[in-house]
Amino acid sequence: METGMKYFENDQWVIGEQAFKTDWLGKAETIMCLGNGYLGVRSTTEESYVGETRNTFVAGTFNKFDDNEVTELPNVPDLIGMEFRLNNHRLDLTKGSVSEYERNLNLKTGELIRSFIWAYKDIKAKFIFKRFASFSNKHLIAQKVEIENLGVPLTIEVTSGINGQVTNSGSQHFTEGDKALSEGKYMQMMPYTSQSNIFFVLSTVHKIKKEQDIYEKTKKRIEMGRRKIYNRYWLNLVRNETVTIEKISSIHTSIDLKTSGKTLEAMKNNALDELKLAQEAGYQALYKASKNAWNEQVWSVLPISINSKNFKDQLAINFAKYHLHVMTPAHDERMNIGAKGLSGEGYKGHTFWDTEIFMLPYFTFTHPEIAEKLVTYRYLGLEGAHKKASENGFEGAQFPWEAAWPDDGETTPVWGAADIITGKPTKIWSGFIEQHITSDVAIGMKQFIDVTGNTNFAREKGYEVIFDTAKFWASRLQWQEANQRYEILEVVGPDEYKEHVDNNAFTNYTACWNIKLAMKLYEELKENDLKLFNQLNDKLDLTRVYQEWQEKVNKVYLPQPNQENVLPQDDTYLSKPVIDLTKYKNSPHVGTLFHEYNLDQVNNLQVTKQADVLLLLFLLEDLFPKEEKLINWNYYEPKTLHDSSLSLSTHAILAADLGKLEESYELFNKALNIDMGENMFSSNEGIHAASLGGIWQMIVFGYGGVRCLDGKLRIEPHLPKAWDHLSFGIIWKNNPLTVEVTHEKITVINHGSNEVVIESFGNTYTLKEEKIMTIQEVQR
Amino acid sequence: METGMKYFENDQWVIGEQAFKTDWLGKAETIMCLGNGYLGVRSTTEESYVGETRNTFVAGTFNKFDDNEVTELPNVPDLIGMEFRLNNHRLDLTKGSVSEYERNLNLKTGELIRSFIWAYKDIKAKFIFKRFASFSNKHLIAQKVEIENLGVPLTIEVTSGINGQVTNSGSQHFTEGDKALSEGKYMQMMPYTSQSNIFFVLSTVHKIKKEQDIYEKTKKRIEMGRRKIYNRYWLNLVRNETVTIEKISSIHTSIDLKTSGKTLEAMKNNALDELKLAQEAGYQALYKASKNAWNEQVWSVLPISINSKNFKDQLAINFAKYHLHVMTPAHDERMNIGAKGLSGEGYKGHTFWDTEIFMLPYFTFTHPEIAEKLVTYRYLGLEGAHKKASENGFEGAQFPWEAAWPDDGETTPVWGAADIITGKPTKIWSGFIEQHITSDVAIGMKQFIDVTGNTNFAREKGYEVIFDTAKFWASRLQWQEANQRYEILEVVGPDEYKEHVDNNAFTNYTACWNIKLAMKLYEELKENDLKLFNQLNDKLDLTRVYQEWQEKVNKVYLPQPNQENVLPQDDTYLSKPVIDLTKYKNSPHVGTLFHEYNLDQVNNLQVTKQADVLLLLFLLEDLFPKEEKLINWNYYEPKTLHDSSLSLSTHAILAADLGKLEESYELFNKALNIDMGENMFSSNEGIHAASLGGIWQMIVFGYGGVRCLDGKLRIEPHLPKAWDHLSFGIIWKNNPLTVEVTHEKITVINHGSNEVVIESFGNTYTLKEEKIMTIQEVQR
Repeated sequence: METGMKYFENDQWVIGEQAFKTDWLGKAETIMCLGNGYLGVRSTTEESYVGETRNTFVAGTFNKFDDNEVTELPNVPDLIGMEFRLNNHRLDLTKGSVSEYERNLNLKTGELIRSFIWAYKDIKAKFIFKRFASFSNKHLIAQKVEIENLGVPLTIEVTSGINGQVTNSGSQHFTEGDKALSEGKYMQMMPYTSQSNIFFVLSTVHKIKKEQDIYEKTKKRIEMGRRKIYNRYWLNLVRNETVTIEKISSIHTSIDLKTSGKTLEAMKNNALDELKLAQEAGYQALYKASKNAWNEQVWSVLPISINSKNFKDQLAINFAKYHLHVMTPAHDERMNIGAKGLSGEGYKGHTFWDTEIFMLPYFTFTHPEIAEKLVTYRYLGLEGAHKKASENGFEGAQFPWEAAWPDDGETTPVWGAADIITGKPTKIWSGFIEQHITSDVAIGMKQFIDVTGNTNFAREKGYEVIFDTAKFWASRLQWQEANQRYEILEVVGPDEYKEHVDNNAFTNYTACWNIKLAMKLYEELKENDLKLFNQLNDKLDLTRVYQEWQEKVNKVYLPQPNQENVLPQDDTYLSKPVIDLTKYKNSPHVGTLFHEYNLDQVNNLQVTKQADVLLLLFLLEDLFPKEEKLINWNYYEPKTLHDSSLSLSTHAILAADLGKLEESYELFNKALNIDMGENMFSSNEGIHAASLGGIWQMIVFGYGGVRCLDGKLRIEPHLPKAWDHLSFGIIWKNNPLTVEVTHEKITVINHGSNEVVIESFGNTYTLKEEKIMTIQEVQR
Repeated sequence: METGMKYFENDQWVIGEQAFKTDWLGKAETIMCLGNGYLGVRSTTEESYVGETRNTFVAGTFNKFDDNEVTELPNVPDLIGMEFRLNNHRLDLTKGSVSEYERNLNLKTGELIRSFIWAYKDIKAKFIFKRFASFSNKHLIAQKVEIENLGVPLTIEVTSGINGQVTNSGSQHFTEGDKALSEGKYMQMMPYTSQSNIFFVLSTVHKIKKEQDIYEKTKKRIEMGRRKIYNRYWLNLVRNETVTIEKISSIHTSIDLKTSGKTLEAMKNNALDELKLAQEAGYQALYKASKNAWNEQVWSVLPISINSKNFKDQLAINFAKYHLHVMTPAHDERMNIGAKGLSGEGYKGHTFWDTEIFMLPYFTFTHPEIAEKLVTYRYLGLEGAHKKASENGFEGAQFPWEAAWPDDGETTPVWGAADIITGKPTKIWSGFIEQHITSDVAIGMKQFIDVTGNTNFAREKGYEVIFDTAKFWASRLQWQEANQRYEILEVVGPDEYKEHVDNNAFTNYTACWNIKLAMKLYEELKENDLKLFNQLNDKLDLTRVYQEWQEKVNKVYLPQPNQENVLPQDDTYLSKPVIDLTKYKNSPHVGTLFHEYNLDQVNNLQVTKQADVLLLLFLLEDLFPKEEKLINWNYYEPKTLHDSSLSLSTHAILAADLGKLEESYELFNKALNIDMGENMFSSNEGIHAASLGGIWQMIVFGYGGVRCLDGKLRIEPHLPKAWDHLSFGIIWKNNPLTVEVTHEKITVINHGSNEVVIESFGNTYTLKEEKIMTIQEVQR
């Protein structure tokens, strides 16, 4: 496959592209996406091309286009666009010749730089574009364009401002809004969302410099059109002369104001004041502040270092961490992470189980203050979860498969694209019967509480979520008289190729685990913290529910291994025909199976889209002996197509656990390439958020061997052959630990002030403050 | 000025372009726009380019995006788009080399043909694109693409279907709608408008042929995305092989069904049945039917022939008639003509006075059955006009400055773009105080009744409109005690540079004329048709109103000529400073005055945007002696910038009347070039509908000398020097007349069955059926 990506053996902080090609626009737009958790901006070029996707999203600003659609993150008016005409010829890299082309994103600084020499007719000019979304002031986006004239004298017409004509694939979420111009140069646009009534203030201003500031004397004209306000500048450049244009922009919304009272007018004026200061500071100073914030908040915190034969391994974790912070709304617990982050329209900005199972662990183990926001989001979602449960005839909290604003409840679309054969729209079942999300939330909550030891959070919010989810599960269980047991029928498990199955192992086991967890918590609180117990009991009617749990918990059907020790994925999976998937697994594209089988046919084969049973074996590893895991890995891995980005990392970790380091590393490499790989189209709809969490997990859980089991910390590293050194950090109950691993030695340093107990290869170590634990010989 | 247009001395039916240039997309999209009065499609290329405007409009389907916007014609999902990839390189004429480029619209057949050879790397292929909007079945659009491979073996990927991601500059008027696929190839999309709830059925299908039909065996795949359904085909072409793809599409809407009862499902199925038949018939047969319909309904009806030294004169009238029929909803009296026809977003599809004063006369004199629909639209608009009058504290019918669906009432936007200096939105005053529209409607109505002699219409609808408008004017008059007269204060006249003026001559004279007309009609009906009189009297309270008319009509202030015999445009115009406008008048761009003056300053100068006093002298010519007209022409022409496309034709006609044939012909030439001229940007927002009506008027009213005055027909031709022969036709009270004019002779043939009385240069001629009137010597 032809690839356009470019990586650098000597710089593991940079991702670049080989060449400019309009077919590849989507790839760079996504994987070089900028952001800071408040906003995300796809890295669309300044000048427009057919095939581009010009997206800016602000976390949490959900809106519903109409009653036929579900709520989604609206595409915000574009601030990035700039058009250039050189001697009346539009800058267009598909025309003329382009040399010295480079486009690179520096993951460490968050700066995107594009440069090239464009020659067209007698025109020749060098362009350097720089841009970043500020990590220190999350409302700001800054751009800088340097143009050096290498040919005939040039008049360059620059058109730049705010463009509100953008949509979400045709759905417009905004009113046109007022436009305003201050002092002839500060442009503002104030649209609001049509249904959720969120007010936006978009602001932008330009600076123009040659040797010195020439803004005032530059010929210019303000123009306003429908949903547009822009300034047009005419710049004259003699040969070898350079001009620099800075564009400083900002976005504010009415949901920034958690307290009411500020008016729109004040918002607008504050944004203007801020913009004036930012413009005065200028690109370079703003950039330094942002770079420092990246370093302080991300790169200097528990850094990961990999000494590998393959330089891409280190690059990949840098890439993953970069995007995890770009996409995560660390500033506001009313928001969570979208399945495509803030990098594309895909999945509408909605939050899935991806958060708890894939991204949350990174934050829980390394940025507990951000993790707390993410789990608090679920606590705030209890109301919606109650609504969903009661609408479906259940008790407690049934979390939505797709979540937007916390109290929206279920936001999964009901209907998908029309069926190719029948022409009728297909029903999307996930919102109705993909119910394991509720135990996933409990799993994430439990891990957060155990790892961080944040008892305040647990007492105020976390325990309630655990009780409420268990309450749902108890009501969800279905008594089967014939089998004399409780079953869970008619669900979709993690493997979405199987749409209506009974007793999906993942669902049944995690549901039962959730109930047992709640029971244990009930008993502990009643024993040790009667005040809190009484509060929660009053609120949740726990005494009654506990009885129900007691009655049911031992009668929940937990699918058991068959004679070959294979744990059945569901009641019928193991009875279906097996086919050879080699050719589909070797295809660089996902979904190729569907060129030969339709969904009904796939439903009747032992083909799994993504880790299902194996994910269970990883998440609840204590419940299954190692031999059983090995047998199941061997059984399911060949049947799993990894047609979801939520799959490879689990298989890789489990393989590492099981000592299959070669297979594991092969899967690790495939997983890295979900976004960074050669397929130039697979990221078009947005970044694969879960797979980025998966990269961190493969390194820290897989090769670093970290696990939090029943409240205890275990560290049992297994380095792949290609690596000779790995160091990483985690925070265990407020104590930062550094872990250094080689093939010979594990060293753990406790930087905290409390004792940390670590289990490792059968031994228990107690680390006092600032003490180093060294295991001389890694056991295998 | 560099121009991209191309015209052919030997073919006065074709408009073409010199070259493909993305800067020029808008020009060809507009002036080569296809349509049939039911729908209009901008001539956007199949493949997409940055800067294109992909518009399809269906007459009458108004929708309001939100409460901040006024209703407008929504941009319908695109059926025209097709993307081609040749050996995986996207067809893109900005890349590679293009030779033998041609794009021509044949005005006679309504067919647009584009052809070129595209060479890129080792690819070389010839493309011929044909398309038309059917004039015989107004729901159909047909396209045909021939691709001949002139280079290496090709795999061509064709992507084509229905794209609902288009918007009106970012405002989306449609729900996504259901998508359907029948028999694997008939694609349909059923969106509806968000506020007006008009249901659309869009349908399309492809045919693929080499030597024979290869559709079935072509590799293909249906794909559906958000607001999109399309088919993708893979075609293999060896060297010199040719493939032909036909795309047949249709549009139906729920307002087609004037009677209720048909369900959406039936609409969809009927559209599908129709599409199947159309597809069977194929492009060529559909084209023939459409071409014949053009000929029968347009070109064979009263043809105009000009023998001029300048071939563009004949081309221009063909161009004008083509577009007048493309834009006019002849099928439905609930619709009228938009100021940009159906060719662009400009003016939102709204109807202005442009219809009555500029386009309607063409239909009244040559297509009375279409004209009847247009005047009936105003009758249907009475309810909205009553509403507007009563909201403003007046009686009778005050017609809206901008009209959409007949009962919408006023649809002029209240606020325009923000003021560049203050940053505040500017108020659009036309909807409030540009009140002459009401007399314009009466003028059009009176002309229609007199020219067609359609007494049924007059008795059922027309008289009522005349009474009701006069009723409005009587209530609008303002008694000025100091002057002891009725004045009309605080209006905008035709000259929109003057925004709040008192006693605009055009307004006062036409208002008074309207009242007098109603009084005369009142008296005639009371005398001759008591039954109808009583009906209308009951409905409109005429007896009371007539008294009011009697009291007021002789006290209406009609501005009088000053000492120099100049009729003042309004109370203050003549007291303002005069400046030299030569340089602005010679500029190829309109609006250049505003590079040096702002609107306030222009308001205080004797500068007129468009014919104002002169339009009055033309429309109510009987009221003013010839010498006064001449003096006023000489006075106002140098002060008129013609910054409106509603201006030049009036000045040209008046100049012809006044014997200033050289000046007239100069203005005529400028007027032709409003759309057909060298300015490649001025038509971007859509065609200038009024100017096209103006072209017909300059020829028939100006040089043909036709006038309908007080119910009488006058024909007093004056040919410009460059012409030696003009022939044209009109229908006078059901009698088709042919008029042949040379510099020596006028011949009029009456093809009708009744006597026609014609006044000409002081003589009265009576033509019996099939008789020829010849005036041997044209008087001057």
